[in-house]
Amino acid sequence: MSIAVATEIDLNSQLVLDNEAVSTLFLDARTANSWSDEEISDETLQAIYELTKMGPTAFNSQPLRLTWLRSAESRERLVPHLMDGNKEKTRTAPMVAILSFTNEWHSLMPTTAPHMAGSLMEMFEGDLAGRNAMGSNNAHLQAGYFIMAARAAGLTVGPMTGINPAGIDAEFNADSSHSVIMVVNLGKPGVPSDRDRLHRLDFDLATVTL
Amino acid sequence: MSIAVATEIDLNSQLVLDNEAVSTLFLDARTANSWSDEEISDETLQAIYELTKMGPTAFNSQPLRLTWLRSAESRERLVPHLMDGNKEKTRTAPMVAILSFTNEWHSLMPTTAPHMAGSLMEMFEGDLAGRNAMGSNNAHLQAGYFIMAARAAGLTVGPMTGINPAGIDAEFNADSSHSVIMVVNLGKPGVPSDRDRLHRLDFDLATVTL
Repeated sequence: MSIAVATEIDLNSQLVLDNEAVSTLFLDARTANSWSDEEISDETLQAIYELTKMGPTAFNSQPLRLTWLRSAESRERLVPHLMDGNKEKTRTAPMVAILSFTNEWHSLMPTTAPHMAGSLMEMFEGDLAGRNAMGSNNAHLQAGYFIMAARAAGLTVGPMTGINPAGIDAEFNADSSHSVIMVVNLGKPGVPSDRDRLHRLDFDLATVTL
Repeated sequence: MSIAVATEIDLNSQLVLDNEAVSTLFLDARTANSWSDEEISDETLQAIYELTKMGPTAFNSQPLRLTWLRSAESRERLVPHLMDGNKEKTRTAPMVAILSFTNEWHSLMPTTAPHMAGSLMEMFEGDLAGRNAMGSNNAHLQAGYFIMAARAAGLTVGPMTGINPAGIDAEFNADSSHSVIMVVNLGKPGVPSDRDRLHRLDFDLATVTL
């Protein structure tokens, strides 16, 4: 594991996952800007989703919606709405996913949370702001699962928020219940980054125990 | 793996993680409401954080802040701000974490993103709403990593958003730059749930390929 030696011993003794899995998901995984030419199959996309969907969400709301961009035409519809520095990455990535949330998650409650569907649908029916907040928050939570799931499938990911959300929504989310939160480039690993990993905050800075 | 047989074959062939790791993180992991009595060590808390912090965030902003509640006194400060159905779980869980975001993440950019610190700090200095949105979104993303990291440490988690955020912020986040997003109960697995897992949305409902 590529982490300071002082904590490496502790880490190994504290985890149930083996070193290889922990490296794949967390310690050696890096945000990617280039990939191998290998295509990503539809089966791999489905496997990523089958893991992503299992992560917990509030009320089992599962507001995340994915738009996979396989065709060159679909990429060219997205590229104008990316920051200049992100355009070439998205043109050349083996796969691109637009991550959005739906604010109509509550309408699926009879299927996703039947034991409380009635009261939740009543609570949220007239509360679009509440549905948007729940949708965005829980879709971001699911984006964390999605990134881990893509790594579990052996892919490296390049999440991007340097995007024009209004432009992407107008182009891809004509159904107005969907709003983009992030674009993620994916593929089999290419040449590793030669840049040092950016600093991560220490335990004592980011946490406190009471 | 506990998933319909039709997709099990595909899954195994599409993943680089072994079955045990995938089960621990995604397929067999369930939201917990009770745990074994075993205490959770400080080393385990640090291990969870050491994994959590490695996940990517926008601008490497890392806005997530954790308040671990080990003492009974600290639990009793939290319990009044939980929905009734959540109070006993939090009293009895071996460990409780309050997950918050800071809207002062930009002040750490010289350490976390030195190559773009100047322009980012200038952009966000007068934009509290933008810093709050970035902070909340990226802390929710990190909450996804946190849940996976806790499972990687062999714990089961019970994330809760049935909370009174204003009450928790007044009690624990007197530093007004922090806002709670979620409370998570954690511990070693207790008696498994005898309830069926709630339905997860099918690939064809939640995704589309262009």
